[in-house]
Amino acid sequence: MLTDRYELTMLAAFVRDGRADHPAVFETFARRLPEGRRYGVVAGLGRLLPLLADVRFDADEVAWLLDAGVVDEPTADYLRSFRFTGDVDAYPEGDLYFPGSPVLTVRGTLAESVVLETLVLSVLNHDSAVASAAARMSTAAAGRPLVEMGSRRTHEGAAIASARAAYLAGFASTSNLAAGLRHGVPTTGTAAHAFVLAHASEAAAFASQVASQGVGTTLLVDTYDTEQGIRTAVEVAGPGLGAIRIDSGDLADTAAMARRVLDSLGARDTRIVATSDLDEYVITALADAPIDGYGVGTRLVTGSGHPTASMVYKLVAVGDRPGGPLRPVAKRSHDKISVGGAKRAYRAYEDGVVVREWYRVGDGPDPEPDAVPVQVPVVRAGRVVHEPSLEDVREHCRAAVASLPEPVRVVSGGAPYLTVTEGRWDR
Amino acid sequence: MLTDRYELTMLAAFVRDGRADHPAVFETFARRLPEGRRYGVVAGLGRLLPLLADVRFDADEVAWLLDAGVVDEPTADYLRSFRFTGDVDAYPEGDLYFPGSPVLTVRGTLAESVVLETLVLSVLNHDSAVASAAARMSTAAAGRPLVEMGSRRTHEGAAIASARAAYLAGFASTSNLAAGLRHGVPTTGTAAHAFVLAHASEAAAFASQVASQGVGTTLLVDTYDTEQGIRTAVEVAGPGLGAIRIDSGDLADTAAMARRVLDSLGARDTRIVATSDLDEYVITALADAPIDGYGVGTRLVTGSGHPTASMVYKLVAVGDRPGGPLRPVAKRSHDKISVGGAKRAYRAYEDGVVVREWYRVGDGPDPEPDAVPVQVPVVRAGRVVHEPSLEDVREHCRAAVASLPEPVRVVSGGAPYLTVTEGRWDR
Repeated sequence: MLTDRYELTMLAAFVRDGRADHPAVFETFARRLPEGRRYGVVAGLGRLLPLLADVRFDADEVAWLLDAGVVDEPTADYLRSFRFTGDVDAYPEGDLYFPGSPVLTVRGTLAESVVLETLVLSVLNHDSAVASAAARMSTAAAGRPLVEMGSRRTHEGAAIASARAAYLAGFASTSNLAAGLRHGVPTTGTAAHAFVLAHASEAAAFASQVASQGVGTTLLVDTYDTEQGIRTAVEVAGPGLGAIRIDSGDLADTAAMARRVLDSLGARDTRIVATSDLDEYVITALADAPIDGYGVGTRLVTGSGHPTASMVYKLVAVGDRPGGPLRPVAKRSHDKISVGGAKRAYRAYEDGVVVREWYRVGDGPDPEPDAVPVQVPVVRAGRVVHEPSLEDVREHCRAAVASLPEPVRVVSGGAPYLTVTEGRWDR
Repeated sequence: MLTDRYELTMLAAFVRDGRADHPAVFETFARRLPEGRRYGVVAGLGRLLPLLADVRFDADEVAWLLDAGVVDEPTADYLRSFRFTGDVDAYPEGDLYFPGSPVLTVRGTLAESVVLETLVLSVLNHDSAVASAAARMSTAAAGRPLVEMGSRRTHEGAAIASARAAYLAGFASTSNLAAGLRHGVPTTGTAAHAFVLAHASEAAAFASQVASQGVGTTLLVDTYDTEQGIRTAVEVAGPGLGAIRIDSGDLADTAAMARRVLDSLGARDTRIVATSDLDEYVITALADAPIDGYGVGTRLVTGSGHPTASMVYKLVAVGDRPGGPLRPVAKRSHDKISVGGAKRAYRAYEDGVVVREWYRVGDGPDPEPDAVPVQVPVVRAGRVVHEPSLEDVREHCRAAVASLPEPVRVVSGGAPYLTVTEGRWDR
């Protein structure tokens, strides 16, 4: 039921007019990247595929759909036995995408494919927006660990998906426990100001935390006076204290002061973690500050100004009888023209750097010798056939971002590095 | 498990240091509104309260928490029997809030209250961001119906919550079927370009849709040539056609053309629905266009530039023994100072217009005679005692927005209409 009413009313019309079982190809792509972004990161596939393979309409849902007038009895019958039986090819999760990249291709009957639109786009648009922001933050952090801690700034379900997307795009860990349990994302955490306030003194709070978590813990030192908080922290935990967290004030100035104070107290290995409205720009600006790790919340889960990717799901080919040949279709709406026909995407590399991405429509001569296919089979006959571990996805993303030229990876804005169009065989 | 690791490590320290059962009061409030916003709409309470009353940790979760080193055995024991047994007071869902408004107050033990932080904020921050944007769009639409259709642009779970938040803040309906099934939000829909492309001709597609949905349906007319699409629509459906949808081009110009063509064909009652990147600003700019209804997607589910409210959850009072008296606490972090003590909020009205909102901390003389309490009891001893219907919430929101002065309701930006501080008895 994670779908739009019009998917099912279109389905009802297809059932009625006899086209439900005609073959169809739908493609997901973005016409553009968010303003200033030079590349995007595809994310969500590992969440989407199990959901897609499990789409069902149970008796209560079908009864509700009939009662709400969404579908008629023949369509209700169709939904009662619905399962997706088609094929899906996709860009591997963690890979790059650019305007025009055919990131996901669904082949099935018209009826079973049209129903998937909303679910496909919800998952890919959300997770890709977060991963695309996370990849830029990871680049900005230049090896210093990033902790995802934005759960409280987004929907409780989106929070879990955001933690997963951030991790695959280079974050070291998340605060979100459900993401740890469900997806195996490493979880970390510090303490809140409430913890300090709940005790009779800052020293008592620190002592309690160290007793419970050990001296390797991270103490939050800015509830009252930050410099005094640091001194109290080292007094309580000793110079072996794991880390302190700073969550307010001018982070660069405060971190510099903190480093001086920690060093003067012999706590030379105590790390400094900064939080408070960080994003890739602030992290870049803090590059010279003695900060050892960052916690990123709001700006991560909201895609750093771009909370959704603008992927669409478009019919590109359809047949006029069950099992019949496909004909390419494309709309010609003003400013929203699409390109008909199923597309196969390729990239070319020079010295490990991606220099071109293009697609071919339909059959033709063999691809150019330097053409590396991008898409992989992910669903066959309704069964998921592509299940990389999240660690594999994370490594794939790291390698994909590393294949971009260095000036494209950095945070400063610009046009998309590549635009993907029909290439090179027919030109 | 929809919570942050640090909530449970703080809990572990409280269990260890003996403070777990000490009484505490936490408050949720926003220090500021998003740039340019003059008021916010509180939303999410109807989703939050059942979640909050149902917080449990099952055996598998506790085993995972132990295994991951998040909690120790005494804390695992505490979690196995966890249930929230405290009290909650809140601003009614759909009500207004301003900087400083104490929108939700949790009273319970330190342990049971600290665990709720992430869940409370996830739900309220997401839903309030969407409802606050929706209220502005509703004002801009000036009585013309708005359809929420942003499911594909947000996480699949957030999509359902967004549909609910939009409806309570004045939208007429949603495309999201799960929101219809789960929350009773009216669902509506049209058709996608894929539906037109899947048929041999636009006329064949329209005929199929009308055969399935009746002439009252909404035909999407811009797949090829919009003017020709309108002519074909009326030819197929007759002048009794319910509506057409325009999703591309200059919407004002296209709507004007569409109205002329429809009228010339005798389809004077056929409505014109516009979609395509609408928000409160575009809707305001289209006020003079002959558009009868709007579909809003991306900008609604992303809070029209502000995808999260910035509410926080802060400890404001704590006791030093079980059942003991509460002492106010407040942090003094730079730029993030909070005000200690549990707060009761009041408003004053003049001629039905809200003119002041203030709070009182602790006990004191009776409130001023014109003081109208804002908070209501919503949970008592862990049981939900406030369950208005979504229709009631929608009516409450309508009345609340109507209580703002007209210049505050309109879309043009400005400072928050009110800032809520400690008032009036002690000044």
